[in-house]
Amino acid sequence: MSDRTELNDLGEFGLIEHLTKNIEHVQPSTVLGVGDDAAVIDRGDFYELVSSDMLVEGVHFDMGYTPLKHLGYKSIAVNVSDICAMNGRCEHVTVSIAVSNRFSVEALEEIYGGMLLACTAYGVDLVGGDTSSSLSGLVISVTAIGRVAKDKIAYRSGAKEHDLLCVSGDLGAAYIGLQILEREKQIWKENPGVQPDLEGHDYVLERFLKPDARVDIIARLAEKGVVPTSMMDISDGLGSEVLHICKQSKVGVKVFEEKLPIDATVTTQAQEFKLEPSLCAMNGGEDYELLFTVDQKDFEKINLMEGVRIIGHIADATDGATLVYPRGEEIFIKAQGWKAF
Amino acid sequence: MSDRTELNDLGEFGLIEHLTKNIEHVQPSTVLGVGDDAAVIDRGDFYELVSSDMLVEGVHFDMGYTPLKHLGYKSIAVNVSDICAMNGRCEHVTVSIAVSNRFSVEALEEIYGGMLLACTAYGVDLVGGDTSSSLSGLVISVTAIGRVAKDKIAYRSGAKEHDLLCVSGDLGAAYIGLQILEREKQIWKENPGVQPDLEGHDYVLERFLKPDARVDIIARLAEKGVVPTSMMDISDGLGSEVLHICKQSKVGVKVFEEKLPIDATVTTQAQEFKLEPSLCAMNGGEDYELLFTVDQKDFEKINLMEGVRIIGHIADATDGATLVYPRGEEIFIKAQGWKAF
Repeated sequence: MSDRTELNDLGEFGLIEHLTKNIEHVQPSTVLGVGDDAAVIDRGDFYELVSSDMLVEGVHFDMGYTPLKHLGYKSIAVNVSDICAMNGRCEHVTVSIAVSNRFSVEALEEIYGGMLLACTAYGVDLVGGDTSSSLSGLVISVTAIGRVAKDKIAYRSGAKEHDLLCVSGDLGAAYIGLQILEREKQIWKENPGVQPDLEGHDYVLERFLKPDARVDIIARLAEKGVVPTSMMDISDGLGSEVLHICKQSKVGVKVFEEKLPIDATVTTQAQEFKLEPSLCAMNGGEDYELLFTVDQKDFEKINLMEGVRIIGHIADATDGATLVYPRGEEIFIKAQGWKAF
Repeated sequence: MSDRTELNDLGEFGLIEHLTKNIEHVQPSTVLGVGDDAAVIDRGDFYELVSSDMLVEGVHFDMGYTPLKHLGYKSIAVNVSDICAMNGRCEHVTVSIAVSNRFSVEALEEIYGGMLLACTAYGVDLVGGDTSSSLSGLVISVTAIGRVAKDKIAYRSGAKEHDLLCVSGDLGAAYIGLQILEREKQIWKENPGVQPDLEGHDYVLERFLKPDARVDIIARLAEKGVVPTSMMDISDGLGSEVLHICKQSKVGVKVFEEKLPIDATVTTQAQEFKLEPSLCAMNGGEDYELLFTVDQKDFEKINLMEGVRIIGHIADATDGATLVYPRGEEIFIKAQGWKAF
């Protein structure tokens, strides 16, 4: 089998790039295909945004500790987040689910209940989809459709040198939430009599199990008249996402370690796990916060904006992407996000 | 566990109806959600059509006899077919795939190759998606996005008494193709030395493994100025689909058995399997032909249309849905399509 290339050899992003490199577009309405948070279709008055994501049992979620309602909510939230990441507003979703018959109708009701809760929260209509059986795990595939004014769209590729690098909310909490769930699962496996000890961890658990799309930040940016020069959402970890923006914008970046927004409970809990809090923030993933750049002229507006932190600035491509520590030490940022294979 | 309802108790359509019955729409652009071949969104000048379908290994396809390139082609074709079923034209698709690492990069290239072949055939742009790992089987989820002029859209619900019932192409071939593949698989399992005997079955095998969406019929209807009063595509079998139109249009139907379009090779092969050819046509499924109704004023145009056959007419709801045999005997049509659970 000399002509067999393993999926691991390419990795998730390499694989997508490899498989989609020969795609040619023939529809004049296609503005952008694969390669950003959402595809962009020209609808005359506005751009339509389309994004599809799949959640696979055992890969993206563990049925051992994932409440079905949360799972439903999350499956919608992460897709709405992709539309936010283009500075857009999600309006419609379709949902396809494959389940084995070990699931009951009531279990599916829970999942749909969570989905509809998210739809209500985001003002999104669930308009279609497919329900089919699966011989093994649960698979949820969501397509989100949204819109953005043509002069407001934010691609990953628009960052320019000296732009300010910004992030919404705080980072690393979802990762810590996952670590706690994994720890309790391990304890339970070794001693099924022990009840999981999740007390006091509400914030980090909710950040992992039921993340929200930052539609509020998109609204705030619009209200203040700030159009990000580039944007994406943080699903794989800040480090990995920063590198995407650098690659697609052909720039470098300096991220200041002391500026990283980290919740106090995350810092405490990270130390208990003997983890560096800033590395949880850089590599944790699943926070679904927004990472974006703005022109320096917007400094005042962004500096005063609730829920947004300036964490660095865009540099020249030759500078590379670095994390700058308070004493001036710089280390190159490497992608250590989720591995899909 | 007294409050556990099995998925089988509801069946695929009952389950979808049950899960989506509480959905409320808030977006003014939403014209139609779940319940037809595609969702309908008002884009001002036209209606946008959105349809999502999932193909699951071991449920919708058997890797034992499904060439990967055909599988890729089929996954696009069946979604394009859903857009055709609204009298629309598909322009964009997104594709999400979950694969285990038993697949090689080359295997994924085959699947994508088939998808892109279909995209080229239908003039569709593949604009996005997701590739992720799976712990078990292969799952392909496709969302198709298309458009239709507002005065040309065909719902399942528009059939009226006396309308002519029409079908494109011929029926039952995909089902016979599947029976042959299953037979050869069985023989091979019992005696791995035997080569599969697929000779002379090209037509039925291709109909099953690589069906085409009838974009040509949609173009022909437009050219002749015929707008179907109702339409859907035949994925679960003519009998099942006819009942959908009757239910949603609140009508009955008479289907004339001798009018069913059945290819000569299907008749021969059905007899070899000791199957009634007309029942293969009624219950076989997976043909992806178009089933539609037209007003009697369009009789001449439809009667002369290549690739279209008039197989019956719409009756009053109180008459029910019946299959009429040449001697006048009538039997009630029952859904015997694919079971999803």
